[in-house]
Formats: sequence, C-alpha cells, structure tokens
Amino acid sequence: MRRFSALLAVLLSAALLVSASGLATPEKLQQLEASGKVSPQTQACLACHMKVTPGIVMDWLNSDHATHTPPQVQEIYDAIQAGPQPIAEKFKNYPYVVGCYECHGMFKEQDRVDVVNHFGFKIVSIVTLKDCSQCHPKEAKEISWTWHGFGALNTNLSPWYKKIVAYAKEHGETEEMLPPVFTKLHKDLITWDWYKEYAKALFNYLNGKPVDEKWLNYIKTFGTVYDYDFKRIISPLYPASGGLATKVGERVGYEPEIGAMCGVGKWKFQTKIKNIMEHPMYKNAYTYHACYECHGTLVVPYKMETTVIKGFPVTRMVYWGWPSNGAGRVDPDGSIGTCTACHPRHSFSVAQAREPWTCGQCHIGYDHPHIEIYEESKHGNIFDANKEKWNMEALPWKLGTDFNAPTCATCHMSTIASPDGKTILVKGTHDLRARLVWDQMHFFGYPKADYPDNVQLAVMMGVKVLTGENIEKAVSGDFKVIPGPKAGELAFPRVATIQFSGELAKKRAAMEQVCELCHSTQWTKNFFMTADQNIIDYDIVAHYAFNLLKKAWAEGIHDPSNKLDEFMEVMWYYIWHHQGRRWRNGAFMMGPDFAHWFGIVDTVMEALNKMISYYEMAKNVKQLQAEVQQLKQQIQTLAK
Amino acid sequence: MRRFSALLAVLLSAALLVSASGLATPEKLQQLEASGKVSPQTQACLACHMKVTPGIVMDWLNSDHATHTPPQVQEIYDAIQAGPQPIAEKFKNYPYVVGCYECHGMFKEQDRVDVVNHFGFKIVSIVTLKDCSQCHPKEAKEISWTWHGFGALNTNLSPWYKKIVAYAKEHGETEEMLPPVFTKLHKDLITWDWYKEYAKALFNYLNGKPVDEKWLNYIKTFGTVYDYDFKRIISPLYPASGGLATKVGERVGYEPEIGAMCGVGKWKFQTKIKNIMEHPMYKNAYTYHACYECHGTLVVPYKMETTVIKGFPVTRMVYWGWPSNGAGRVDPDGSIGTCTACHPRHSFSVAQAREPWTCGQCHIGYDHPHIEIYEESKHGNIFDANKEKWNMEALPWKLGTDFNAPTCATCHMSTIASPDGKTILVKGTHDLRARLVWDQMHFFGYPKADYPDNVQLAVMMGVKVLTGENIEKAVSGDFKVIPGPKAGELAFPRVATIQFSGELAKKRAAMEQVCELCHSTQWTKNFFMTADQNIIDYDIVAHYAFNLLKKAWAEGIHDPSNKLDEFMEVMWYYIWHHQGRRWRNGAFMMGPDFAHWFGIVDTVMEALNKMISYYEMAKNVKQLQAEVQQLKQQIQTLAK
Amino acid sequence: MRRFSALLAVLLSAALLVSASGLATPEKLQQLEASGKVSPQTQACLACHMKVTPGIVMDWLNSDHATHTPPQVQEIYDAIQAGPQPIAEKFKNYPYVVGCYECHGMFKEQDRVDVVNHFGFKIVSIVTLKDCSQCHPKEAKEISWTWHGFGALNTNLSPWYKKIVAYAKEHGETEEMLPPVFTKLHKDLITWDWYKEYAKALFNYLNGKPVDEKWLNYIKTFGTVYDYDFKRIISPLYPASGGLATKVGERVGYEPEIGAMCGVGKWKFQTKIKNIMEHPMYKNAYTYHACYECHGTLVVPYKMETTVIKGFPVTRMVYWGWPSNGAGRVDPDGSIGTCTACHPRHSFSVAQAREPWTCGQCHIGYDHPHIEIYEESKHGNIFDANKEKWNMEALPWKLGTDFNAPTCATCHMSTIASPDGKTILVKGTHDLRARLVWDQMHFFGYPKADYPDNVQLAVMMGVKVLTGENIEKAVSGDFKVIPGPKAGELAFPRVATIQFSGELAKKRAAMEQVCELCHSTQWTKNFFMTADQNIIDYDIVAHYAFNLLKKAWAEGIHDPSNKLDEFMEVMWYYIWHHQGRRWRNGAFMMGPDFAHWFGIVDTVMEALNKMISYYEMAKNVKQLQAEVQQLKQQIQTLAK
Repeated sequence: MRRFSALLAVLLSAALLVSASGLATPEKLQQLEASGKVSPQTQACLACHMKVTPGIVMDWLNSDHATHTPPQVQEIYDAIQAGPQPIAEKFKNYPYVVGCYECHGMFKEQDRVDVVNHFGFKIVSIVTLKDCSQCHPKEAKEISWTWHGFGALNTNLSPWYKKIVAYAKEHGETEEMLPPVFTKLHKDLITWDWYKEYAKALFNYLNGKPVDEKWLNYIKTFGTVYDYDFKRIISPLYPASGGLATKVGERVGYEPEIGAMCGVGKWKFQTKIKNIMEHPMYKNAYTYHACYECHGTLVVPYKMETTVIKGFPVTRMVYWGWPSNGAGRVDPDGSIGTCTACHPRHSFSVAQAREPWTCGQCHIGYDHPHIEIYEESKHGNIFDANKEKWNMEALPWKLGTDFNAPTCATCHMSTIASPDGKTILVKGTHDLRARLVWDQMHFFGYPKADYPDNVQLAVMMGVKVLTGENIEKAVSGDFKVIPGPKAGELAFPRVATIQFSGELAKKRAAMEQVCELCHSTQWTKNFFMTADQNIIDYDIVAHYAFNLLKKAWAEGIHDPSNKLDEFMEVMWYYIWHHQGRRWRNGAFMMGPDFAHWFGIVDTVMEALNKMISYYEMAKNVKQLQAEVQQLKQQIQTLAK
Repeated sequence: MRRFSALLAVLLSAALLVSASGLATPEKLQQLEASGKVSPQTQACLACHMKVTPGIVMDWLNSDHATHTPPQVQEIYDAIQAGPQPIAEKFKNYPYVVGCYECHGMFKEQDRVDVVNHFGFKIVSIVTLKDCSQCHPKEAKEISWTWHGFGALNTNLSPWYKKIVAYAKEHGETEEMLPPVFTKLHKDLITWDWYKEYAKALFNYLNGKPVDEKWLNYIKTFGTVYDYDFKRIISPLYPASGGLATKVGERVGYEPEIGAMCGVGKWKFQTKIKNIMEHPMYKNAYTYHACYECHGTLVVPYKMETTVIKGFPVTRMVYWGWPSNGAGRVDPDGSIGTCTACHPRHSFSVAQAREPWTCGQCHIGYDHPHIEIYEESKHGNIFDANKEKWNMEALPWKLGTDFNAPTCATCHMSTIASPDGKTILVKGTHDLRARLVWDQMHFFGYPKADYPDNVQLAVMMGVKVLTGENIEKAVSGDFKVIPGPKAGELAFPRVATIQFSGELAKKRAAMEQVCELCHSTQWTKNFFMTADQNIIDYDIVAHYAFNLLKKAWAEGIHDPSNKLDEFMEVMWYYIWHHQGRRWRNGAFMMGPDFAHWFGIVDTVMEALNKMISYYEMAKNVKQLQAEVQQLKQQIQTLAK
Repeated sequence: MRRFSALLAVLLSAALLVSASGLATPEKLQQLEASGKVSPQTQACLACHMKVTPGIVMDWLNSDHATHTPPQVQEIYDAIQAGPQPIAEKFKNYPYVVGCYECHGMFKEQDRVDVVNHFGFKIVSIVTLKDCSQCHPKEAKEISWTWHGFGALNTNLSPWYKKIVAYAKEHGETEEMLPPVFTKLHKDLITWDWYKEYAKALFNYLNGKPVDEKWLNYIKTFGTVYDYDFKRIISPLYPASGGLATKVGERVGYEPEIGAMCGVGKWKFQTKIKNIMEHPMYKNAYTYHACYECHGTLVVPYKMETTVIKGFPVTRMVYWGWPSNGAGRVDPDGSIGTCTACHPRHSFSVAQAREPWTCGQCHIGYDHPHIEIYEESKHGNIFDANKEKWNMEALPWKLGTDFNAPTCATCHMSTIASPDGKTILVKGTHDLRARLVWDQMHFFGYPKADYPDNVQLAVMMGVKVLTGENIEKAVSGDFKVIPGPKAGELAFPRVATIQFSGELAKKRAAMEQVCELCHSTQWTKNFFMTADQNIIDYDIVAHYAFNLLKKAWAEGIHDPSNKLDEFMEVMWYYIWHHQGRRWRNGAFMMGPDFAHWFGIVDTVMEALNKMISYYEMAKNVKQLQAEVQQLKQQIQTLAK
C-alpha cells in the first residue's frame, strides 16, 4: 500500500510529499501547515524543533498522527469492529491533527508535579499511558491489566514495592496505596495514583518545600527504589547479586584491596572488601541499561532547572529514571505501562508493533528467546520470504490478503479479518494473557495466573519464591490430566491428555481459533497435546534437580543463606530460569532447536549433569575431609 | 518481477486481483473460478474451505499451482534445461489448474490405508512425496536418495529402524523390508513400501480387524517407534537421554520421591525414582517438538472417526506423528521425505526455498549453525543489503541479473544461468551431497559418504558409533595428503594439500564451478586448501580428546556404561557434536566467528581445557581416596 | 530511489537496462560500451570476463563505478560538503568510467613485485588501499589511522610484527622499518613501505634471484608470519593456543599417540605427543578462516606461474594469504587496510556499507556482539520495520527523509544532513574512534587510546598485557570522577558523574551531537551518565576476579607459565574478553539482554561464581593432599 501510494505520488504529483523511497519530506510539513490542520500551538513547537531536534519532527511527519484528528480514532475502532469507544471530552470535536502540543500540552492530569513552562506553554516531557488513554481507551485499559503494565513493579521495582505492599497491608491502607488490582476487574484503566502524590511530596522534600507529615513518613520509610535496594538484596530479580555478594570469598579467606578505575590510575578509591557489593563505588548501574530498558523505571522528577540548550535558555524538569521506554514504566502522573515501548517514539506505528523484532527487543536471549524461536519457526520463514508483499499497516488486518503467516502480534493480540475484510474472524486485544494457558516462566509446571501475574500475586499473597507454593490460588480455571499408555503398550495417543475448564479452557480455545484459520482441527489439537506433555516432563525434571539442591543444602555442601553464589545453585537457576523455559517455549512456538538443544539438552546435559557431577565430587571431598580428620585424631591417640 | 506485475495490475486493471502490496485478493479467486480453469471437484472444496480455513485457500491462491495445469510443469524443466520429464499418465492432458482435489484427491497410491470419504470425495489429508512425484519426478527422485529423505530413519527413528534392519538381515528379508538403497543406484524414487503394508496391518490390528500372521509378527516385534524406545535407549541421537537415565544419582544415593505437576498440586503421581526416565509420567514429549519437527515423524493412521467440526460432521483419519513437516517424514503410503519442508504448505514456492531462513529452520544452533554462518558471511551481507532488488522466483535463476550473491540454495542446489538466461552455467540438483566433499558431522575427519549417508551405513554395516571405524567403506573416491612445510621452514603453501580422486574429486569440482562464477581459480583453490587443513587439525584435536576420555573410562574415573551422564563425556560430546562442527562449518562457509570463537576456541578453551582440568581434579581425589584407605589400614595395623 | 528508477526505466523505455527487480541486465553493458564511456582496455577485459567470471562483471555493472569517471568523485565530496579533495594526476581529466583496467591496471605503485603480464596488459590481482586512495584520498587516509587499518598488525600478525618492532628499536631503524604512526599525525595516508621492499626481497629469495644482504638478514630474522608463530606462541591473540599447548596433560601423565585423519585410515602420521601443538601435522589452519577473515592477512607473492584456466593459458602471481578481505590486510605495495572489507568486491557500494550486517560480519559473537545488540535495540527494530522506505544510497544522507533511525554507520561514521539536504548537521569520518570515549575491549576500565590503538601502543611502549599498566599514556584528554550519593542517602543523580576534558571531551561531544538529532539533551546526558558508571562497576568486578587468579597462581593452584589452559584462567579470560565487554557494549548501545544476561550475569554468575567455586574445591583438595602427606610422615614416624 505504502509502496504503491509512494509511487503514485511521484507519478501524479509535482510536489514531492514523500521521498521516492517512502519517507516523508520537509515539503509535506509545509503543505500540512498550509492546510490549516495543525494547531497554532503545535506550529510554534515545530518552528523551533525542526531545527533543534529534526529527527523527532520528521518521525512525527511520517506518522498517522500528523494527518489525523483525535475524533478520527473512531475509524480504527470501526475498522476492527470494536464499537464506539469513549475519547476524552476535550478531544471530541477537536479540529486539529495530533501534533506536539496535543500530547505534550493537553496531558490528562493537570496536577502532576513535572509540568514546566516551556516558552509560555505548560507542557510535560513525558507523555504517559494516561495521556494516550484519552484517545485510545480500549488499548490503554487492556494493557494496564496485564504483565506488561506491571513489568517494573513486579520485577526490578519489586523489592521496593514489596515494602509498600507490606506497609499497606499492615496499616490497612491497601485500597489507598496500591493499584486497584484486586478490587476492580477489568473495569477501568489500572493506575497507581498513590505514586502521583508520592512524586509530588518527594519533589517538595528534595527542593526544601513543606511536606505533609503523612508523606514525610512515606518518604522516610520507602525512599526511592534507586541504588539502595540493589546494593542489599540477593534475589532472582537481580541474578548477578548472588555472586556480587558471594559468601564463598569470605569462606576461603579472600579479602582483596580494590580501587575503582585503577586500571588507568586516573581515580582511585582503594578499599578492602569481602565481596564486590561492599565496594562503595560499586553502583549496580547495569540496572539502568538492563532491567529498566525492558521493564521500565520509576520516574522521579527531582529538580527544576533553567539551562542554555543549543543557544536557548530552557526551563526543564530534571528526572531520575529517565530515559526509559520499558513496558512497565511508572510515571509521575501515576500511570503504569508505556505505549511507546512498542509503538515507539513519534511514529506511533501499528506496522512497527506488528514487526516481530519489536517484541524481540525484550523477548530475546537465554531466558525468553521468543524472537529466535520465531525466526526459526516456519511462521518466521514465511514472513522472511514474503514480507515485502505484506501490508503491515492495514486495519483491519486481512488474512491472506495482507499477510500470509503470523508474526508475534497475530497470534497473541491482533484482530484478524477475513480476506475480504468484511468479517472479523478473531477479536483483538492488548491483553497478552488472553490466549495463553501455561506460565512457562517460573520454577515448575504452572498454569497462567490471573491479573496481573503470578509474581504480582507472589507479592500480594506470599507465594514462596523457590517452590511456588500456593500459586494455584492465582489461577482461574482448572485442568485434569489423563495419562497416556505405558511405555511399550500399543495404544494411541502416546502422551497424557490435559483437559482444561473455566478460564483456562477459554484461553486455550482463543489460541486454537487463531491456529485454525490455517490449520485443521486435528493438526491443532495434536500439536497442543504433545506440547502440553512437555509441561509435565519439565515439571518432573525440575523437581529432580531442585530436590538435589535441597539435599546439598541440607548436607552442608552448599550454604543456602546466599542462594545464588555456588555451583549447584547456579545450575538450578539455569534450569528453571533459562533452559527449562527454552524447552517449553520452543515446543509451543515451533522452534525445534530451542525445544531440544537450547532446551531439554541444555537442561539435562549442560546443567543437570554438571550439577550431579559436582555433587559427587564435593561429596567425595567432604568425606575425605571427615576421614582425614578422624585419622588425625586416631594418630594423636596412638602417639600419646 | 512480482513487484512490477503487482503494480501493473493496479495501474492497468480495475479488478484488484492482487493487493497493492503483492498478495492475492479474494477477487482473484472469483475470476479464477469464472475462467473455467478450476476443476469442479476443487471448486467444491473451495466453496467450504474459504470459510473454514481461509488461510489455506489464500495461500494456494498466491501459488503457481493456482494458475498452472499439471502439463505446464514441463515449462520449468525447459527453463532449467532439464529435458523432458515423465509426469503421471492421468495428468498428461489434464485441463485444470493444480487445486485442492488434484493433490488431495488424485493421490498416487490408491490402496493406502488413510483414505477417507470427505463429503463424497475419496481424499487423503497428507500429500506425500509420492504424490508430488507425479508431476515433479526429477526433484522427488533426487531428494529421496539423500540425507534429507532419510532424515528420520537415520536419526530419531533409528533405534526402531535398526531393529527392523537387524531382523531383515537375519531373516533374509532385506530386499522386502528395507528401502532399496543398495540395490538400485539413483534409478528411481526411493520409497519404503514395507511401511505402507505395515501401516495397513497396524491400523487393522488396532481397530480389531483381521491381520495376516506375518504382519502380526511384525507388529509384535516392532510396535511403533513412539515413546517406547525413547524411554529405554541412551544414544547420541537423544542427547538428553544420558542425563535422564543417569547412573550418578544412584551412585551417590540420590533416590527422590517425585510427582508430576506437583508444583500446582492439581495432579500427582508420587513415586520414588532412581532417575528421571524411570518416572511413569515422563514421556520424552520434547521429541515431537524437537527431533520430529526437523527430521520428520513416522505417520501412524490409527483410528477413523466422524466428528463435528465448525458445525459440520466430518469423517477423518486420526494420525499419530501428525502434524510434522520434517524433511524425512515417513508417510502411510511408504513415501520417504517431505517436499513441504522447504516448499511449505499451500504456496509451494521456489522463492521460499531459495530464502536462507528456509534452510535455517533446521540448520541453526549449537551443532549446525549454518544460517548464523551465512548471516555472518559476506555472501549473507550482500543478500541482506540487496535482496529487495533480487528476483527470487526467476526460472532459470540468472547470475547477476536476478541475484548478486548466493543464498544456501545457490551453492548447494540451484540451476544457475548466465546473466542473459540463455546458457545454463551450473546444473541444479535436489541431491544435497553432490557438491560436498567432507562429512563434518561425525566424530573425526571423514569424507562425505555415498547414499544415503554415513549414519545409514552405520545402521547397515555396523559402523562403530564412537570411533567411526569402517566408515571409509561408505565412501566412493579417495584422497591423498601432501604435507606442507615444517614449522619455521620458509616455503609455501604452508599447509597440507589434499588431492581427491573419484567421486570426491567430482564433488569438489562441482562446488568450485559455482565459486568460480564470481571468484578466480586461485581464490577458490587457496580457499579450499586452507579449509581442508582444518579437517586434519580437527581430527588431531578430536583424537586427543577422545583418547583422554577412554583413559578416564579405563581408570574408573568415569563409567562408560552410560556414555552421556558424566562431565568428561559431556565435554567430548560438545567437541565432536557441537564445537568441532562449528569450527569446520565456519571455516568452509566464511563465518570467521564460527570457525574461531564458537569453533576451535570453544572446542579447546571451553571443552578440552575443562575436560582435562576435571580429569586432574578427579584423579587427585581418587588418589587421595586410595591413600586415605591405605592410611586407615596402616593405622589399624599400628593400633593392633 | 533505486526502486523508483527501476520502475521508471521499465515504464518509459523499451530497453530493459535493469531487471524489473532492480539489478542490471546484460543489455546495460552493451549500451554502456556503445556509449564510448568504457576505456578500450576495460572493454578488452570485459570481452573475456563476461564469459569466465560473469558474476564479477555483473557486480561491477551494478556499481556506480560503471557509470562514473574518476573526476566525478568530487560530486561525492561536494554532496557531503567535504571540500575539494586531491585525486591522482593521471585521473584528473580521465574521460572513461572506472572499469576493470582503471583499478587493476592503473595501480599506484609501479614497482610492486606482484605485477603480471595478463594478455598484454600489466596488471595486479589485488587492488589495494593505496590504489583506491588515488580517487578517494579522504577516506583512505582516515581509515588508515584507525584500528581497522591496523587490524592485522595489532592482532593476528602481532607476534611477528613485535619482533620487527623490537629489532627496529634495537637497531635504531624505527623510522625506516615501521609505519610512521608516531612521527606523523593524520597528515597523510599511513602505509608500511618497508613491507613492499620486504615482499620484493622475499619473492626474489624464494625464486633463487639475488637478494641484497640487508634484506637477506631481515628474511632470516623474520621469515613470514605464517604457521611458525602460531605453533609456538601462547597468547590471548590465539585464545585456543593455551589449551593446544596445555601443560596439564603432561602434569597428569597424558602422552597419547595420535595420527592425522586416522578416522578414515586414509593417511596416518602416528606420533606420541605431549600436547596438540606438538603434532607435526597440526597447522592451526583455522587462522586463515577465523582471524584473517576479519583482521586481514599479510599477502606474500611467492611464485609466478603460467597455467591453463578455463581453456586459456594465464600468467599469474601466486600469493599466500590470499584470498582475504580482512579490514587490516597488509598488501604487497605496503598498503595497510582494505576498502573492500566494507564496500565489497565489485559493487563498491555505500548502501552496503551502511547496512548493519556489513559491520556484523566481524562485530558479532561472544566478544563483540555489536550486531546482536543493534538488532535488539530500538534503533534496530525501527530499521527492521522501515528499511524498505529508506534510501540507503543517498549522498548526503538526509535525516528523516532518507532514514528514520540509525544504523551502525550513522552513529559512528556518517555525514548526516538536514531533512532538506541543505545543511550538514554532523560531519562524517572514516575514523571510527572519533566518537568513542571508552576502550571496552581490554582487561579493566580504560579510556579510548589515540591512534592507532592501545595495542599498537602495547607493542611500541611496552604496556603490560594483563594489567594495562601505562595504558593511560596512550590517551589524550583526561577525566574526573565525581562520586554519587552513598547507598540509602536520598539524593540524585544516584551514580557517579564522569567529567571529560581534552580529546575525550571532544569524542563524547561528537557522539552526543548525533544522539541529539532525535533525543533531548537530558535524555542524552542521563543515558551516558548511567552508562559511564558501568565502566566503574566493571572495573571493580574485573579486579576482584583478576586478583583471585593471581592468588591462585601464587598458591600453586594454577601454573602461570601457560596462562590459558586451566579452569580459573579460562574464567578470567571470559570475564575480560567476552562477558565484561558484552556488559558494557550492551549498556552503551541499548541492548538490555547484552548488558544483563549475556553481560553482567554471565560475568558474575557464570564466570566469577564458577571461578571462586573451583578455587574453593581446589584449595580443599590441596589442603587434603598436604594433610595426607603429613599423616603419612607421622605414621612412618610412629611405625619406627
């Protein structure tokens, strides 16, 4: 579509509104402004920003926002047959296209702390989920109830957030302090308004302004998440932390004196340490470029300043935790979740979000190689060979006509229309759990929990971290296992069959509906039947390995007080967190190398074999030590 | 071409037969049916399936099958100058395009067991190599003689198949029970008709129908491949099996009680086990989503049923081992090999098969990272930067005009024409061994064996699994090594030169012919000269490592009765199966990181260093145990 | 652009000069020759080579060289506003396009040894940096001063080159024997004319011609780099060498008898060896397909021969070290560096060089996963989703109009113009160090050294390999570390701030200028602030690990005489060479999985944890050995 219209523009029109290759040109901006469709405020922004940050302006110029007014969003909802959706009052008859001012100046929460006066306009730098929800209410609501929205609170912010949860429960302030996860059910956008107030109070406190006692108490109790927890907590959420705070060093008498940047001798801070985490200059700064980039930060506005930027005196809010476009970012207006994580920056593109690598920016690597599995899968092969013929922007997305294999979005989210676009065959959602039956992330064989997620429930309900005890409480729906025939017995099917009921049954059916657009019902049923057995198989392997680790702890071969700094502990971590996931993810998404080599083979050959070999060697050495000790005593006795 | 015709269609015609982006639209189907080119039977299929599985129909609509009649296949053979090829009698003057009925209803073997009555039509779900061979005889024959055709029998089905081979040899039924690999030489399509009869007998047996005594004997002797071998055999074919059936656990007294899915408490099967494989609920179900997805299954039709699907009562055959599009699938009609593995589903596309990632769906990962090597190579770089300008569908494929760097297919398979298309410069083949000199897959330095492969020979001739003894019997052609100068001696070339004769010489020449389309003869010769020395180098390293393992076995440091569950055993597996392959594959296909870091460095630094370090530690501990034992005795003696 | 012109050509012209898909057709060649723009010499080449190597000719036909004369190169320099650049006198008014003869026949150094008579023309096979510099002086000069130019001398050729350096320093021949790195500063193309003379002398020596005594001395002292160093030197430059020459084997009494290719029994060289490197047939031939493919070879012309190739008697120079397109190749004319590494073969394409995977052909894998990080990054995601709309060939490259996200080249090299192309916003360079502050490659936390690189300085100034002592001498500019608040203290920013001055400040500013085309100054500043802290964090971790290894060496747990063959040595290598790089590279280039899982987690959990676990076990065993020894003596005493 895009290619064709680019060409037509070239052939039929003298004005080069788009470059021959397909991106917008500056001429498009001129014409757009001339047309009267750009608000005066946005025109003021553009006048300057085309010079100081031209990349941003051009990105926007390529977007649908540049050519559509807020009320036109209903065209999208009509296309996907989602019915009328309520947009914010102020945008209902708004005549201008969605430009700089419409997002940065017409933000939702007027009392958020980080509003600045920018050359006469009251604006915010950070456009939040709440702001986007003014025109995109359906998507904002759906995403806010799922793992992606809670991606920071449940993971990198979790130790800090756990304190808040504990406090709120102790003081009966659950309702007030926490997002309304348990009291509301998919009825509204989930936000965390407590944080909006906290951000205000913190800003005032840091800038010497008066702060209400209640909030002063909160500030003293919780501080901010940055740095201080990371230096104290050993947790699977910070998997390097076990080794950084290792107890083995101390046990073997290793206490080196270490500076910082002493490699160059430019700056030193020589100090004797028992482990790395103790070093005063060590800051765990990887979190900003690792955890936060996917999971999101907690944005802290901490100072207002006026500074000269590219020749202009600019007043701006100075933030900590910024930049971050992580999916679960918590914003100063209490928003949870980040639209720009997938619809990036100023292009706000649906095509970008349907691109597999958009998911791949986080779903990659040892512990969630979803993009690698997709690339290996036949689905990915077909995409690779055909994507030039696809229409990635079509709304609705027409099966066969616009695409001939699924990307990540297709199976997990997309509205799918019939080839002629007239019928919606599959209803779309931004709730990523809607088509998933299994939690393939944690420890053992678990079904997928309800909103927002297991880990949220772990926080709220006290699920035991290493065993997952009580985790079934988090699941709506049930399942029954019908064992297959015994080994050698001649009967089919040769694996167990799992029967789901309740929510779990709905989730499985939702995914099957997608599969069956191209595959037979038998194909689909058999595929899931053998895939499900992998959950059982994994569960058995995981218990075998974890029980061995517990034995090693019990026998003093390893010390459980730091659970991530000894050999068998690391192997167990690999099994549940890396390799066991790859095995199951690979099985369910048609990545045979991930099910096999990176999956079960790494689980068993690489991790379990080494774990058990280590155990044997360590046990032998321990026994030798005991025997030598005994011999010493016997000799002493003899010598007397 | 595709892009151009898409555009022209848009510009010149009112009917939108293809979408602007390039895929077919439902209008194309209407026009096609109106044209009278679609058989009445296929029209009947389409009427329903456009509603129940629109994805399949649209895929077919995008294919060349939708617009070509069977006799037109000769146009392909003319384009690649392959001469006249015999198509099946019934298709010789067939007037309709190749639609649903032509493949699913006009199948080759009328007496296969899995034929069903589908709303009045006798059809099969699974279209096999035999079926495709009716119009594509050259390709079907070529592929059937090579590794790809035997991809399942030689690997995941091998333990089961070995029994059959042994039985057939013992009972003088070689001719009857085995595919005619050794008695015919490229004269015909290789199939396994014994299996067609076996599938029939098994179906009858399972459904309580009478079965001939001979077949009853076979059924009792062999059963089916599923589940039962996987639970008993430790084999490099199931690399996880060593650890799953580990003997170390028992040795250290580890016998845990483990349930299945006890993580959620939904279902338990608590039992005490010595190793994982013993657990009654453990099913090795990864095989279905790992081994089988690339290698293929053995398809077992086991039940006929009528069930309501999407509102219609449908009679269907229920299969085990389905779905699978693995390259070496064995079908109920005795077919070996699967065209759809590379020309997937209903698009049957040559462009798809020429796409590197089509090969990459199996040739990926630790042990055969061919797609990763290609991506790293300059060939891959050029493809990436230029593929939009390529014509992936052209027949013949014109050097320079249609493509300006090779994909996997180009070097290993493709017919390559001169830039003007008039001359065939390189003759194409579906026999993937035709241009390969070395077997870089097994244990040590071997030349590439004749049809179908080393491993087939291992099955037939008793090649020893861990040493490769006798493997030279499987090779036609010979080679001679002329050593290079000694270290320090000033002479060139500085490596050994290997001179090939017979079939090996032909294979090397076939590949050089491709290289020399773009590279000088010196470039090509030197490249292979240094690459060949890597085979020698690897061979030395592999023997050094394997001999060390044999020493560890001999000294009781490891127990050879389970060859894949102890540390040094795993390291040796990595050397021959993973890292030593990467080293040589990387060298031969221009992936320097794979030759080096993932290759020799992992072989030596990661595996061999660790192997020898472990050996030293284990030896020290063993000696300490002996010394302590001696001391105990001495003290006992002294104490007396 | 390309796509559009391809289409226009199709629509408006009968002559199919380009194929519909976009590549050139043979008709283009005919028309080009008819136009009189091709020199008679080049026409002679084409007449034959269109038949013998059509791939090369077609590649050239697709290039800009095929349609541009040498003086037109100034159009490029005008487009990027680089001012007038001096091209070679002979090309100043040259009327023909740049064809075969212009590069292979009009080479720069008339007296190079590898000139051959090719059917009446004096030509060279290898076109060198010096040759390209005749028309592209700016780029040739810039690249020659950077790491890429010295990519072979500093790494794979380093042991050989170090000897030359030592000799030159001892004999006061620095000026004469070495490239003028220290005496000239960016004033001219860096070459190594000593090698040109050496290559001549060596050729004469090998072919029995008279050689001057001075050069005979050099030949006897240095020989050539090939094979002989690789068999003797254990160095991090050949990381496999530690294990290949391991001392552990000897220590445990392992001295196997090993042949070569004994797996097939075709050829044997049975011999008893203490380690692999000792084996006379072992040649380290991986170097040709690993090191050299990225870093480049030293090309040795060693024989002139006349041989029949494809029916013609051809006189050619036979080279060792050829083929190689590694970035730092040293050529027989004294050139250092290889343009074709990134502008490959005969297409000489700027679009290809801007393609991320062009960098990725070397910047990939364990120790420099830059392409993987790019693919994961949001920049890479946007490229993936939009590249069809980009103009990869535009000069200048216009922000927003031609591209809407950076590729590798954009940030590190490219000239970037405003959206309308009128203003150059960022000046381009082929000096890859110009925008980089940190050396993230070596041991500890170092700033980026001046030309050509740390390692060159290591060669010249005696920097200690494992500690980096004196490395700061190689850096222009300084930095100051301002520590952040302590853990728990409520203040922002929460990490150290590093202030740069001198050249380092300029480098940081140069990169920030690129970022700020699309990102705010706060975004940019904060991003680098947290990224910089990762350098400090890494430095602390690296010292903790390295000090532990030194302790193990001191206590006899490991033997430092071979630094790469024991467990903890390998772990330390992984930390500084693989995982510590990934951590920092991932942090600076927005690859969160590389900063985290492949980075700090692998550094700490995988390498450091295992290192310290091994240390504990080894220490326990060592102590047991001592205790048992003591017990033996006590018993002996008692027994007396």
